[in-house]
Amino acid sequence: MLSNIFNPKSIAVIGASRTPGKVGYDILENIIQYGYEGSVYAINPNASEILGIKSYPSLLDVPGKIDLAVVVVPSKNVIEVIGQCGAKEIDSAIVITAGFRESGLEGAKLENELIKKAKESGVRFIGPNCLGVIDTHSKVNASFAAGMPAKGSIGFFSQSGALCLAILDRALPDEIGFSKFISMGNKSDISDTDIMLALAEDDNTRVILGYIEGVSDGRRFMEVASEVSRKKPLIILKSGITSSGAKAASSHTGALAGREAAFDAAFKQSGVIRAHTINELFNYALAFANQPLPRGPYVAIITNSGGPGILAADACDKSDLQLIPLHKEIVDELRTFLPPVASFYNPIDILGDSGADRYEKALNTVLKDERINGVIVLLTPTAVVDVDATAMAVAHIASLIDRPILTSFMGKKSVESGSKILMKYNVPNYSYPEEAVSTLHAMYRYKVWINRQEKTYPPLNKLKEKAVYIFDKVREERRERFTESEVHDVLNAYGFSQPKSLFARTSEEAVAAAKGIGYPVVMKIVSPHIVHKSDIGGVRTNLNSKKDVENAFFDITTHVRNIMPAAYIYGVIIQEMIRGGKEVIMGITKDPQFGHMVMFGLGGIYVEVLKDVSFRIVPLSQEDAHDLVRETKTFPLLRGVRGEAEADIEAIERALLQLSQLSIDFPQIFEADINPLLVMKRGEGAVAIDARFSIGGE
Amino acid sequence: MLSNIFNPKSIAVIGASRTPGKVGYDILENIIQYGYEGSVYAINPNASEILGIKSYPSLLDVPGKIDLAVVVVPSKNVIEVIGQCGAKEIDSAIVITAGFRESGLEGAKLENELIKKAKESGVRFIGPNCLGVIDTHSKVNASFAAGMPAKGSIGFFSQSGALCLAILDRALPDEIGFSKFISMGNKSDISDTDIMLALAEDDNTRVILGYIEGVSDGRRFMEVASEVSRKKPLIILKSGITSSGAKAASSHTGALAGREAAFDAAFKQSGVIRAHTINELFNYALAFANQPLPRGPYVAIITNSGGPGILAADACDKSDLQLIPLHKEIVDELRTFLPPVASFYNPIDILGDSGADRYEKALNTVLKDERINGVIVLLTPTAVVDVDATAMAVAHIASLIDRPILTSFMGKKSVESGSKILMKYNVPNYSYPEEAVSTLHAMYRYKVWINRQEKTYPPLNKLKEKAVYIFDKVREERRERFTESEVHDVLNAYGFSQPKSLFARTSEEAVAAAKGIGYPVVMKIVSPHIVHKSDIGGVRTNLNSKKDVENAFFDITTHVRNIMPAAYIYGVIIQEMIRGGKEVIMGITKDPQFGHMVMFGLGGIYVEVLKDVSFRIVPLSQEDAHDLVRETKTFPLLRGVRGEAEADIEAIERALLQLSQLSIDFPQIFEADINPLLVMKRGEGAVAIDARFSIGGE
Repeated sequence: MLSNIFNPKSIAVIGASRTPGKVGYDILENIIQYGYEGSVYAINPNASEILGIKSYPSLLDVPGKIDLAVVVVPSKNVIEVIGQCGAKEIDSAIVITAGFRESGLEGAKLENELIKKAKESGVRFIGPNCLGVIDTHSKVNASFAAGMPAKGSIGFFSQSGALCLAILDRALPDEIGFSKFISMGNKSDISDTDIMLALAEDDNTRVILGYIEGVSDGRRFMEVASEVSRKKPLIILKSGITSSGAKAASSHTGALAGREAAFDAAFKQSGVIRAHTINELFNYALAFANQPLPRGPYVAIITNSGGPGILAADACDKSDLQLIPLHKEIVDELRTFLPPVASFYNPIDILGDSGADRYEKALNTVLKDERINGVIVLLTPTAVVDVDATAMAVAHIASLIDRPILTSFMGKKSVESGSKILMKYNVPNYSYPEEAVSTLHAMYRYKVWINRQEKTYPPLNKLKEKAVYIFDKVREERRERFTESEVHDVLNAYGFSQPKSLFARTSEEAVAAAKGIGYPVVMKIVSPHIVHKSDIGGVRTNLNSKKDVENAFFDITTHVRNIMPAAYIYGVIIQEMIRGGKEVIMGITKDPQFGHMVMFGLGGIYVEVLKDVSFRIVPLSQEDAHDLVRETKTFPLLRGVRGEAEADIEAIERALLQLSQLSIDFPQIFEADINPLLVMKRGEGAVAIDARFSIGGE
Repeated sequence: MLSNIFNPKSIAVIGASRTPGKVGYDILENIIQYGYEGSVYAINPNASEILGIKSYPSLLDVPGKIDLAVVVVPSKNVIEVIGQCGAKEIDSAIVITAGFRESGLEGAKLENELIKKAKESGVRFIGPNCLGVIDTHSKVNASFAAGMPAKGSIGFFSQSGALCLAILDRALPDEIGFSKFISMGNKSDISDTDIMLALAEDDNTRVILGYIEGVSDGRRFMEVASEVSRKKPLIILKSGITSSGAKAASSHTGALAGREAAFDAAFKQSGVIRAHTINELFNYALAFANQPLPRGPYVAIITNSGGPGILAADACDKSDLQLIPLHKEIVDELRTFLPPVASFYNPIDILGDSGADRYEKALNTVLKDERINGVIVLLTPTAVVDVDATAMAVAHIASLIDRPILTSFMGKKSVESGSKILMKYNVPNYSYPEEAVSTLHAMYRYKVWINRQEKTYPPLNKLKEKAVYIFDKVREERRERFTESEVHDVLNAYGFSQPKSLFARTSEEAVAAAKGIGYPVVMKIVSPHIVHKSDIGGVRTNLNSKKDVENAFFDITTHVRNIMPAAYIYGVIIQEMIRGGKEVIMGITKDPQFGHMVMFGLGGIYVEVLKDVSFRIVPLSQEDAHDLVRETKTFPLLRGVRGEAEADIEAIERALLQLSQLSIDFPQIFEADINPLLVMKRGEGAVAIDARFSIGGE
């Protein structure tokens, strides 16, 4: 895939320049100077030769076949050049030129024309407005970056060219190896997902690193990310500022879905390893690219000083990693060569007078404990320790075993060459112990993801038929909101239990309905003009007798007529009064990039004050529903506290899957809240007490 | 203070060695080679001269006066040497020698003897088991560290010698300046607080940095830290592993006070800036030592690339810092020299083709907006930018203004010399934008602390008298637990409202009591053998009539006799039944290092499931009580949600102060819970419904 971008047999630089410092010069120079072995053509109507290479007036004048066009001409000429690419049957281009969408309205127009022309001409392209592309294995450096990273196995793509520069510059002195380096620019043709797929297939790439500010098609992103992350670690730094502070949301679910909820959910559901800072992105990449994954959470720490050992242990404590005590035989063996005041458990403190040999022995001994899934080696530059020899010893052992070893040789001056030795032999070295721990933790979390079985989607696809007519009716009547009885019928079609309820136009009908349902009952006003019924005194609960019902009917209707004289009153609904159970809230909202999301949380104050809710992108798998319920902090309340019975958690999971299906069947749903859903004891189900639906968009 | 440690006129090294690589040699060499100008004496019975310095057989043979003794003799000889110090009227020593408390029981004994001998001899000392002490201003390097940090204003003390080495090694290549470097070792005489006070008084020290694993006297630590942190920033990295998993706690308060609760509270109450990783410790130190504090939260970001700008803005968003849009005049001025597609608001993106001059102009212009309290300058190493010139320009501007400027010149190779320029001119440069933001945030938080008024302690010291007899009685009877009526009387003495209640031995007395109090009432069994009354059916609520009371009395007593035949039943308590109000929990627990702490949280499931509680060390100031209540996540529930009235938050604060006073007056209190305290509407107070007290310890 995209092989002419990464491994072209010939490259033309359109807009090549004779002036050092100009982008058109720097790119040509980069292509030539890093050992690219294919043919290179310069295109510049005013030159006959640049950097020792023959220059042609136009692409069309080049005699041979061209695989890749690198475009650096002014923005107004780019479209013409792309047309020439088509004529010359060049199917791949990198558009370096800026001055498109990022520069305002005129630029956006130009970019749309560019997209159109490229499609017509059969040209796929990266950019515009990018730094270019580097492939260290095919030795292509079609970028104006200052330098070429070492050959390696990290594939990096970035929406920010600046971040490319910064990471490249950071990588050069330590000779950190990359397979590919892709500056995505405006992503107007080749997208993040295209690149993720290409890197997933690329044998030279072991770990995929990305920086994104947003995605254009959230669904497609998740689909591809899920596929890719099962093959290779996919580590993404996502920045989050949006100016959408004023998002209009009238539902709870919508109001609670902050700008990061969709990305958080999408990353979780598709196995993306999320880096939260550039430093983390970098730290993770080093370990994932160079060390095997830990098979479990058990970690040993070897250190020549107490303080850093404790700091590392603290960091483990805050993660899912566990410092288990070593087996007795291992401890006994350690005792044979460590001083008696060493610390033999975990962290293993081999003391400040350790040399390389003691490190080597200790590490070999600790690794004999087969339960240990990974080791972190800490070193403080004491006067006695030979840092380089220790680095060599650790690196040698690491190369022989299939468990991850990370190091933190602390300091700067004294550990510089040791750190380089470690890096050279694929052992990532971190400035501080906490970084090594958090990286190993990310590796363990990824291993857990990999080990999970396939997702299961219970069949729920026969439900739609019974609800289609309702959605049709709402659309025909050009409404956005559903009436109470429409909501009732939709929920019914999707298998939600609801209180028995009957509609009544008169006091007499209300009494008859109550009798039919059985006391006690709830009465609610029905009016197309009233949304928040209880706020205006339109709801009465706990009606226990004929008299109660008659009084309530009179009170409600009189009251509503008084305060909203213009409201048309259809009548009331008489509803079975459900007692007991725990209030939860669930809902559907729509994210502009990812589409429908399902929300879950405990109802009432938990959602209102603590905002303790969680989201998953639709469609939800059985496993997503399982995780979603358990992710809220208040989950233990459903398990039962103070001797209460456990709530019917399975019923909640079923309900979440039903909501997910509903939003798939009816993409026009804008928002939905079921609030509250009363969850009964285990095995006794859940009842949707109140709900609101609206459509819009699509 | 400790002037002979840091600025001695003469130093003797006892245990000086002729063998390079031995500690006794390295220290002597360090003292000599870094320009110390006082007299130096070597003490070694087997040498006449070491490193060109005359060596004496014993301290007592030295002719002149000695200010500081540096002790490197084997541990068994240290005590004798300290005795000689006394004889020679040397009042200060650094004991480098290891083999004391850290090495086991024998060593601990030896250390106790050392402490005793030093006291007798009038010698104050640092160590034992330490790396030594460095003072860059008096040019004393009485340590065996490899190197001497540059002269500067960071004072660093550390319980871990290894961390000293790592930080020193990290500081050397960047020439980061320190005033003093103190390896504390076992802290058996001179303590963290002694050093904090010395550094607070030291004119060469602008910021105090510490690493601690624990403190011996928590109270004293807080007292000193509060005093010091008002003068200078006090930044501490505290590691937390303890092996006290099995802490015995029978109260809620005790069980909820995790191992970090006391330190968290102590740091907050005394203005300590807590670093969470070594990296943070270092990052904070650079900025606090070299830049002024921001006077407010308003920050501007200047960047030559979008991605890093967004990442920095994201980080601001997660902190208390605010990116405000610049004034219109400022934006207009920026427009005069920035390209039209630049971003003029905040972050200000001056684009990838910026040179040093554009950075300079932009920074100068932004600073004209007087509302901006601090600026973060980001730079990506593009081909166009002259990194060193930009560094010079930024450093020059920073030197002229009294607002903080931090930078993140990203990358490594291309920014190395620029970064050195920035550091040299006191502008801290960070590898990643997020680090610059979190550091500026720490500076802002410290400024907020500094600006707070003095703490106020409302007078509550007359309450004790009324409760003394109760505590005396419990002690005399050798009990740990208080009876219900004793708890009642203590709470009463300390001003807590409680439900009206009367003791009744018979059914008739109970009926009379209920009549006196007024229906409805609550009935509780009273027995010295029953602690958890409701668990065994010993509590009845909502008794509305004579008949209810008679039935309840019969039921309770029969029931308790059946299931606990051996329990002695005194009778029952009839209690006013309080309705309404919100349940909160508060309590007292005892931390081994800091003593009594007061806890607060919302009652019921909030405390049981969410563990949403907070702590403060006693004594609480008015401000502590204020913060403590507001620190819990559930605090908005007290403010009132869903149109509820606000709870009487002042009553809660009063109650917390009363509890604080109680624990001061009676240090023998081991644990106390008031659970629940029912808080009424604003102005209507709070009622302690149930409580438990126990004494022990002291």
